[in-house]
Amino acid sequence: MEKIFERLEKARKIAPLVHHITNYVTVENCANITKCFGASPVMADAKEEVCDMVKLADALVLNIGTLNQIQIESMKLAGQTANKKGIPIVLDVCGAGATKYRNETCKELCSSIKVSVIKGNLSEIATIAGLSVQTKGVDSGNVNVDKYEIARTLANTMKAVVVITGVEDIVSNGENTYSIKNGVPVMGKIVGTGCMATSVIAIFCAIEKDYALACASALVCYEIAAENAEKTSDGPGTFVSNFFDKILMLSEISVNKMKRIYKI
Amino acid sequence: MEKIFERLEKARKIAPLVHHITNYVTVENCANITKCFGASPVMADAKEEVCDMVKLADALVLNIGTLNQIQIESMKLAGQTANKKGIPIVLDVCGAGATKYRNETCKELCSSIKVSVIKGNLSEIATIAGLSVQTKGVDSGNVNVDKYEIARTLANTMKAVVVITGVEDIVSNGENTYSIKNGVPVMGKIVGTGCMATSVIAIFCAIEKDYALACASALVCYEIAAENAEKTSDGPGTFVSNFFDKILMLSEISVNKMKRIYKI
Amino acid sequence: MEKIFERLEKARKIAPLVHHITNYVTVENCANITKCFGASPVMADAKEEVCDMVKLADALVLNIGTLNQIQIESMKLAGQTANKKGIPIVLDVCGAGATKYRNETCKELCSSIKVSVIKGNLSEIATIAGLSVQTKGVDSGNVNVDKYEIARTLANTMKAVVVITGVEDIVSNGENTYSIKNGVPVMGKIVGTGCMATSVIAIFCAIEKDYALACASALVCYEIAAENAEKTSDGPGTFVSNFFDKILMLSEISVNKMKRIYKI
Repeated sequence: MEKIFERLEKARKIAPLVHHITNYVTVENCANITKCFGASPVMADAKEEVCDMVKLADALVLNIGTLNQIQIESMKLAGQTANKKGIPIVLDVCGAGATKYRNETCKELCSSIKVSVIKGNLSEIATIAGLSVQTKGVDSGNVNVDKYEIARTLANTMKAVVVITGVEDIVSNGENTYSIKNGVPVMGKIVGTGCMATSVIAIFCAIEKDYALACASALVCYEIAAENAEKTSDGPGTFVSNFFDKILMLSEISVNKMKRIYKI
Repeated sequence: MEKIFERLEKARKIAPLVHHITNYVTVENCANITKCFGASPVMADAKEEVCDMVKLADALVLNIGTLNQIQIESMKLAGQTANKKGIPIVLDVCGAGATKYRNETCKELCSSIKVSVIKGNLSEIATIAGLSVQTKGVDSGNVNVDKYEIARTLANTMKAVVVITGVEDIVSNGENTYSIKNGVPVMGKIVGTGCMATSVIAIFCAIEKDYALACASALVCYEIAAENAEKTSDGPGTFVSNFFDKILMLSEISVNKMKRIYKI
Repeated sequence: MEKIFERLEKARKIAPLVHHITNYVTVENCANITKCFGASPVMADAKEEVCDMVKLADALVLNIGTLNQIQIESMKLAGQTANKKGIPIVLDVCGAGATKYRNETCKELCSSIKVSVIKGNLSEIATIAGLSVQTKGVDSGNVNVDKYEIARTLANTMKAVVVITGVEDIVSNGENTYSIKNGVPVMGKIVGTGCMATSVIAIFCAIEKDYALACASALVCYEIAAENAEKTSDGPGTFVSNFFDKILMLSEISVNKMKRIYKI
């Protein structure tokens, strides 16, 4: 865990290209946060070009937030190209548990491509793990389960890193499980905090082969910037502006001093 | 009119889920304002899932800002499900009066589903009322008509609440007509102020069965927050950030003191 | 070059309607900047209505940032209507050089419609000029070429104004070539600075028939506002907010004092 800031610095230096096939709600902020972390975002979802774009990319984000049939086809094509090339795929199961369509698409994607990281809130991940729960649109429903156990078990089943975001974030590769307790409540008042975290996770996975450590490091940096932003904000509107500013200001001192990450 | 703040408090407490089928221009701010008013937004427009999503929802927003054939099909399916379930449907006739396609789609939607609230600027609503006017893209054209009369008549014809937004907003269910004179000019310098108002109207309709009162209360709260935001802003950019902040700060004192709502 | 501010004032007075067929990543900020410059934005891309919308419009923006087959068809229809009407078309070749699909679409568009302005970063424009270069997603790759020469030659070949954006912007109609050295580095940390510049160029082309002068004037105003915004910002987040504010504050004194535009 000592290398969190080193990973951030590596991302800033290498500036990976992160290809996104994502929803049209939070897409601009996903692109902006990618830039703020020193990487390059690209968004493209036509089946005619996704494979060419993945060939240039260092990581692939698939986010099912505003799913449709055309996107599903492109996600598979992009995912297969990413698998061949060996770059990480981060799947944000946004809204799983809300509709059958989302649940089945997640299954379909996971069976046709090898996903590196599966990320969602508790009710989304519980859905993927096969529990019968309900997601309130894209906001987590109340689920009374052992989240550490779900993360570990699903990680082993899927042979992927599982990330559950919330007040406490859980990251598990089945063997190692991390708990991250950074972040601020105002993040619950803006959309896209989950989607943006996915972009940051993809950046870190592009530069760190231990994907569990990459995910945990990404969340720590992301949420420490949020804590710094919250201090100078009056609410969710000014918070978003300050958040982007604070990402560029993330320093070794603040990351090491503020990180609240625990190995379970 | 004494219960405006009580309605806001009820919305904050109940946190209704508002399903949006909307344009890709202002969608993020529609989601954000929904969150700031204490509710949950969800955006989904694939025909494969809109009915499932509406089954979870407490209100439905249909906004024709960037219309296409796929969306129209989903809007009908979602609308029919909403009608069966008895939840309010708010139709934002964004850009009606600019193209034949938008005009005809509005007719088609209103004939295949029962809309609870029809909302637009003056030239958009005049178009729906059958007048031959022209909308400048999505900005209101100059229309020299009696807006109170148009609102009342259209409300009676459509058996729906009609909302005309502008410097003065008009809300009418045919019987009762309200005029709201809150708001600030800087709102004319950013896109999405109409679309966001629609989201807020949907939230209030989810918790108040008298939809005319719900619409009027929504606009009062929305625009008082805008007035508060304008005081600490230097222009449209900082205004947007401050606007979201001020929504969370809306208090009984400010709402009651600042409201400029009149029954006509 | 003495008339830069006069052109801005004319745009503010005439308030042209700019129709956009553009990507879903930066679309909201394109709409917002259009409003801040005093014009009206409209976004519509259904083939059923683009021709009607262009008939109302004073300029057309085509941006291939998130291209798909449906959009290409609409771009051609809109472009042909714009050509008939005689309004300017600004083509942003966003991501050209990244995929074959984008390169071929640019060719297809330029052969089926008469484009007034072709705009991109250096590797995008070099691709259009037929050089074998690579764009990093939508960010410029390193290209070692004479950019003045590329701009001039391509302008002559295409009989269009060519704009290359970067730390130094180049504008050429083949005969006259301008270099603009306004702008600030923080613009590289947010998405959409290129796309927004395209919207501003379209506004100026709507009110100034000498498109090279229009483009150069647009970039000067746009970037001086950015310089003013940077002074009161702590990073890319607050910069964006301040940027929109500063556009409304652009004055004759600041434009004339701060402009760094040179005829080559």
